Amino acid sequence: MSVYTRVSESELAAWLRSYSVGDLTTLEPIRSGIENTNYFVTTSQGRYVLTLFERLPAEELPFYLNLMAHLARHGIPCPAPIADLSDRYLSQLNGKPAALVTRLPGASNEQPGEAECAELGSLLARMHLAGRSFAGYLENSRGPKWWRSAARAVHPFLDEDTARLLDEELRFQSLYRFPDLPRGPVHADLFRDNALFEDGRISGVIDFYFAGVDTLLYDCAVCVNDWCLIDPRRDRRLEPGRTRAFLRAYAAGRALVALERGAWPVVLRAAALRFWLSRLYDLHLPRPGMLVHAHDPQHFRDILTLRAAGGDAPWTD
Amino acid sequence: MSVYTRVSESELAAWLRSYSVGDLTTLEPIRSGIENTNYFVTTSQGRYVLTLFERLPAEELPFYLNLMAHLARHGIPCPAPIADLSDRYLSQLNGKPAALVTRLPGASNEQPGEAECAELGSLLARMHLAGRSFAGYLENSRGPKWWRSAARAVHPFLDEDTARLLDEELRFQSLYRFPDLPRGPVHADLFRDNALFEDGRISGVIDFYFAGVDTLLYDCAVCVNDWCLIDPRRDRRLEPGRTRAFLRAYAAGRALVALERGAWPVVLRAAALRFWLSRLYDLHLPRPGMLVHAHDPQHFRDILTLRAAGGDAPWTD
Repeated sequence: MSVYTRVSESELAAWLRSYSVGDLTTLEPIRSGIENTNYFVTTSQGRYVLTLFERLPAEELPFYLNLMAHLARHGIPCPAPIADLSDRYLSQLNGKPAALVTRLPGASNEQPGEAECAELGSLLARMHLAGRSFAGYLENSRGPKWWRSAARAVHPFLDEDTARLLDEELRFQSLYRFPDLPRGPVHADLFRDNALFEDGRISGVIDFYFAGVDTLLYDCAVCVNDWCLIDPRRDRRLEPGRTRAFLRAYAAGRALVALERGAWPVVLRAAALRFWLSRLYDLHLPRPGMLVHAHDPQHFRDILTLRAAGGDAPWTD
Repeated sequence: MSVYTRVSESELAAWLRSYSVGDLTTLEPIRSGIENTNYFVTTSQGRYVLTLFERLPAEELPFYLNLMAHLARHGIPCPAPIADLSDRYLSQLNGKPAALVTRLPGASNEQPGEAECAELGSLLARMHLAGRSFAGYLENSRGPKWWRSAARAVHPFLDEDTARLLDEELRFQSLYRFPDLPRGPVHADLFRDNALFEDGRISGVIDFYFAGVDTLLYDCAVCVNDWCLIDPRRDRRLEPGRTRAFLRAYAAGRALVALERGAWPVVLRAAALRFWLSRLYDLHLPRPGMLVHAHDPQHFRDILTLRAAGGDAPWTD
């Protein structure tokens, strides 16, 4: 349901002539993903993912592609954009901005244990360190400004309790902006399905199309709220062992400052709020063709409520 | 015999802290290679080759590293330099300029058939196309200027016949400089041991430290003089099947101009001359520590004589 733009084998074969990746072998649409059209592409040279950008503003695309290229050349296992014969990462295919990136091996792990969470923490720290020398800038497109506009948009659809909880959280978050926390390019969407594992190691971090500049701690909070729940369906409190494994491995790669420890509970709530809001938005204001993917907002409302209640294990190490 | 500079595990572990490639797992010296010191390096992130540059002029190193980075991001399977946390490909280790590059899978094929020669031709054409947008410039360090200085240096050691053959070839080549042939960055040393195969495909082209800007046809000639001999030990004439397979695959990727067909016999001789000269040089003026690697100059003298005699199959397709 998420192939918005069709590409035929002959169209792609012609397009690939402006690259140096050999001849097209196979082309296979990827059904998952809701923002872009994606295909697996195999050529005589290698395995790639073709992305046609359906909704992202054209002026933002260089940030994502250049960030991936930057991280890849620092050894981070992320998709590396392939430059065409005119040395550009971005070109046009069937009327859409399009890019070819390397396809990484491995598979996501829906039930990570402590070892996988430690792998993730370690890799995220390395990503943040490598990102420091990246010169590009794009504000996190799902930051506080977006929270307010999304909240206004969904407000008419909410019952009284939900509206009050949302307003209270927005008010609470507005008291904390943490301008002094370490910042840099963050993935901002590193859920379990965006990390590929092979032989127990992370072989790929994918889908950088929500990346932006924000506090590095926010990236950690997004991860923990997805990877470290006791049971994602039944008990969304943080599981202490995995949470500790993630944070220790992260801190071993990038030492955390005192300010970050203090901000952690607030940032965990901010990360829950962002996804609660986007799920409310997608539920009440769906775009054509994306209904089948609408996630239940209740999941993140629950996470937000639990983090706000403070019942989680505190920062531990 | 080719590890000129020793690096201990603790020295390397400390050095790797300025990269985002994880922690050192193993370090293993590479015995082959005569120009640089090389180690295989494994970290928690991946597999790399560490190179310490022993003799190459420091000002030339950015050309080699930037060219590899350029080709890698165009999808050419060559070592990709890893940038450090200061975003540099080149740094210092134990007093030497040093770089970390990705280690590619596969193994070289000492007895390539037509299929492998076609693979090579196809890849070389893609490399040349991708190289067109590379902005760096370095003259081929083993071009005509070097021929003349190397010839002067070895002259005192040569018998009369050898000296006459060398002088005649230098005179012959001086009549042809081909300023109008297509030029660009060339590998210039793509012998069988510098291509890695996996599942019948080239998985890596390595050792770019003789690369420079020259005629693209010269790169083809270097390949053919090594990959397409009837029998490298006993019959150094070109084997028509493999030669044709290489040239056809190359021309399918990059169409050749009429001028290149005309220049082919001369460029084949130039490519033989260059390696004959470097082997004469290494034999008569060896550097300390490289004697064990000295190749017999007779091999390329024989190739040069055969190409000059014109007994090879002509350009075919």
